[in-house]
Amino acid sequence: MFRKILIANRGEIALRILRACKELGIATVAVHSTADADAMHVRLADESVCIGPPPARESYLNIPSLLAACEITGADAVHPGYGFLAENARFAEILADHNIHFIGPKAEHIRIMGDKIEAKKTAQALGIPVVPGSDGGIHSDEEAHRVAAEIGFPVLVKAAAGGGGRGMKVAMTADDLSQALSTARTEAKAAFGDDAVYLEKYLSTPRHIEVQILGDGKGHAIHLGERDCSLQRRHQKVWEEAPSPVITAAQRAEIGETCAAAMRKLGYIGVGTIEFLYENGNFYFIEMNTRIQVEHPVTEMVTGIDLINEQIRVAAGEPLTLTQKDVVIEGHAIECRVNAEHPTTFRPSPGKITHYHVPGGLGIRVDSNAYQGYVIPPTYDSLVGKLIVHGKTRDECLRRLRRALDEFVVDGIDTTLPLFRTLVRTRDVAEGQYDIHWLEHFLAEGEGKNVG
Amino acid sequence: MFRKILIANRGEIALRILRACKELGIATVAVHSTADADAMHVRLADESVCIGPPPARESYLNIPSLLAACEITGADAVHPGYGFLAENARFAEILADHNIHFIGPKAEHIRIMGDKIEAKKTAQALGIPVVPGSDGGIHSDEEAHRVAAEIGFPVLVKAAAGGGGRGMKVAMTADDLSQALSTARTEAKAAFGDDAVYLEKYLSTPRHIEVQILGDGKGHAIHLGERDCSLQRRHQKVWEEAPSPVITAAQRAEIGETCAAAMRKLGYIGVGTIEFLYENGNFYFIEMNTRIQVEHPVTEMVTGIDLINEQIRVAAGEPLTLTQKDVVIEGHAIECRVNAEHPTTFRPSPGKITHYHVPGGLGIRVDSNAYQGYVIPPTYDSLVGKLIVHGKTRDECLRRLRRALDEFVVDGIDTTLPLFRTLVRTRDVAEGQYDIHWLEHFLAEGEGKNVG
Repeated sequence: MFRKILIANRGEIALRILRACKELGIATVAVHSTADADAMHVRLADESVCIGPPPARESYLNIPSLLAACEITGADAVHPGYGFLAENARFAEILADHNIHFIGPKAEHIRIMGDKIEAKKTAQALGIPVVPGSDGGIHSDEEAHRVAAEIGFPVLVKAAAGGGGRGMKVAMTADDLSQALSTARTEAKAAFGDDAVYLEKYLSTPRHIEVQILGDGKGHAIHLGERDCSLQRRHQKVWEEAPSPVITAAQRAEIGETCAAAMRKLGYIGVGTIEFLYENGNFYFIEMNTRIQVEHPVTEMVTGIDLINEQIRVAAGEPLTLTQKDVVIEGHAIECRVNAEHPTTFRPSPGKITHYHVPGGLGIRVDSNAYQGYVIPPTYDSLVGKLIVHGKTRDECLRRLRRALDEFVVDGIDTTLPLFRTLVRTRDVAEGQYDIHWLEHFLAEGEGKNVG
Repeated sequence: MFRKILIANRGEIALRILRACKELGIATVAVHSTADADAMHVRLADESVCIGPPPARESYLNIPSLLAACEITGADAVHPGYGFLAENARFAEILADHNIHFIGPKAEHIRIMGDKIEAKKTAQALGIPVVPGSDGGIHSDEEAHRVAAEIGFPVLVKAAAGGGGRGMKVAMTADDLSQALSTARTEAKAAFGDDAVYLEKYLSTPRHIEVQILGDGKGHAIHLGERDCSLQRRHQKVWEEAPSPVITAAQRAEIGETCAAAMRKLGYIGVGTIEFLYENGNFYFIEMNTRIQVEHPVTEMVTGIDLINEQIRVAAGEPLTLTQKDVVIEGHAIECRVNAEHPTTFRPSPGKITHYHVPGGLGIRVDSNAYQGYVIPPTYDSLVGKLIVHGKTRDECLRRLRRALDEFVVDGIDTTLPLFRTLVRTRDVAEGQYDIHWLEHFLAEGEGKNVG
């Protein structure tokens, strides 16, 4: 096992990793920018090293500084958390060159999954369901109609050279297809100088459902069920839950085993998340994140398994001792990402927390680096903390979340707590009836305007 | 279901009850003395009523004030918590006379279990194992030897009129018995003017193990496993855990079913705890508490069942929906009672909490009414809060407790946190090797002197 882990991150995830290290009896090194000298995890770590000023490229993304911090402190492993260098294959390789363990998968797996096209190809080859479409460009209207008939309407016509929604058209039925092709080609030509287009199945109201996996690179890999992260604003997850309100045990076992089998074939080491769009009972691969995720606690709450502990163990070369049958989903968990933002305008609200009190009692977990008197710097993301609530049923979980949100006090700054207090009392959320567009509509249509 | 519950208590248990009410959607009334106007649960309750000044007999024990508060607010039920009026049968009857529900068992059951002799007789009649002894007074040395041979040495000779340890002698073997009888008789005569003595089996190194039960008074009663509360100081529990480190699943099922069957026979309503001394594989009834207990959270953590929620439901006349097979003991939980006391002298330390920060993360629960700026009044008990930690195994639980204790900050007053930081690192505790005398010895022998 590692003797000393350097935590190459900040905020709540740095504290989360520190807690796992303490429970494993591993010494910890906190690194911090000059803006984060008063951070909670810095206070609790065995040692700390200042690695530079903000912005992140001068400190948390500064590989030479991190290497120097490892050398000064004698750390034999680095936990990258999420964000920053967590999916930087080169960082993993550089650490390896210096005989320091990177707590994450092999560099090649980070690299494959970091490239969208490569990732989709790999997923497909490993038997993971992907969004069906034309294998390459569409060369004629006839070909488009044939492919569209195969994959089923609605279909999306996308510019091969595209991005940002330009050259992208939806054909709801076969009648729309020729017009969509023509418009897409014209827009693509104008925008990218290339009128090549391809077809993909269009998912109009999907949910975002992701599968947590854990592998040891020694032939063992398991899944820990799914998380439903459909409540998003600008592609940022806001509220996550496990299990998904719409997934059956049979579906869970099937997609879970598909993912676990893929990871066994790949020889994947550590935790990872395979993200899907989900519509009409089908899963469609989006991407794989080769790191711990912000929303991992909901999985921990329903399985009782400490994912960071497991991640560290397999990174140290221990075989996975958990088997698939050890993973039992008990009850329901919901996470709210409490951000230092105005609850309706979402304007960032850094500053000093003048009063801070977290909810307590049965089924409540708070993962937060905040404390009374803490000054949230304007430099980084706005996550103040995560409130995670567990109940025997989704209904109990919602009732508990409601009371926990009412107890949570963060004064001195704006937070998104009022938004959650509204969401938890909103019928569609209570019924689990939402897709990835629901929250944007809810906010745009002003249904959320009474927030606060 | 009740519409509005008046919480006839203070401190952490008042907050605990309030949380359960909120989750059930029941309106809450906090009552408070003038010393508790700033209490957390008063801030969070829907309504609050000041019921008088300290001491408790002028407020929390003041039945007319409580009745008036019920009438003013229209509360249809009263939750008594623990302590104060929780085991006052007369209070339950007076409430009933005013058509207000008492959230607890029938008055007759409170009364029976409140009388030590009556309680032991009832327990025995219900099939619960009690401490064996002479049924009444011992009239001769021959009779004493016969009874002692039956129950086995060591035996305790106790003054029938006794109390406070006077007229109490231990006979380790038959050789000691005549001398013990003679001395006990002499002491009893001198102390109480009555030399009648009786015999009881002497338990030299017992553990305190208690069984949590839950009944609906409609023929259903279940047990929720045991709690081991052997770590005590001056008969006050300090550290409690579930399950007990020394009880097997077979023993749990057997003593649990014995207790549940007894409660079915009794027609018991609500939560209750049957307390035992445990030695050499045998359980010996001490007493039954007909209320929720301070240490109930460890049971909640290993079963996932909200005991106060269940208690309220059955008090409202709902049948128990849980069956014995719904109660599955998962993992291990430990509770530390953090008191506002010096960690070695145990001198009370009321006053203002200048900095307060609770631990967070997976498996951590804090039940506390404290907050930064809260002033602990000198008037009441010294409980600041309870730290409850859950892990998949006892070892994981201990490791997690260790790190949680290191995160817990309560400044401005003395607390017993340093004692727990020592205990969690002490070998006997880590190995679960302790009896009800262990902590007193540990403290007396100065092994705890480095606390802090």
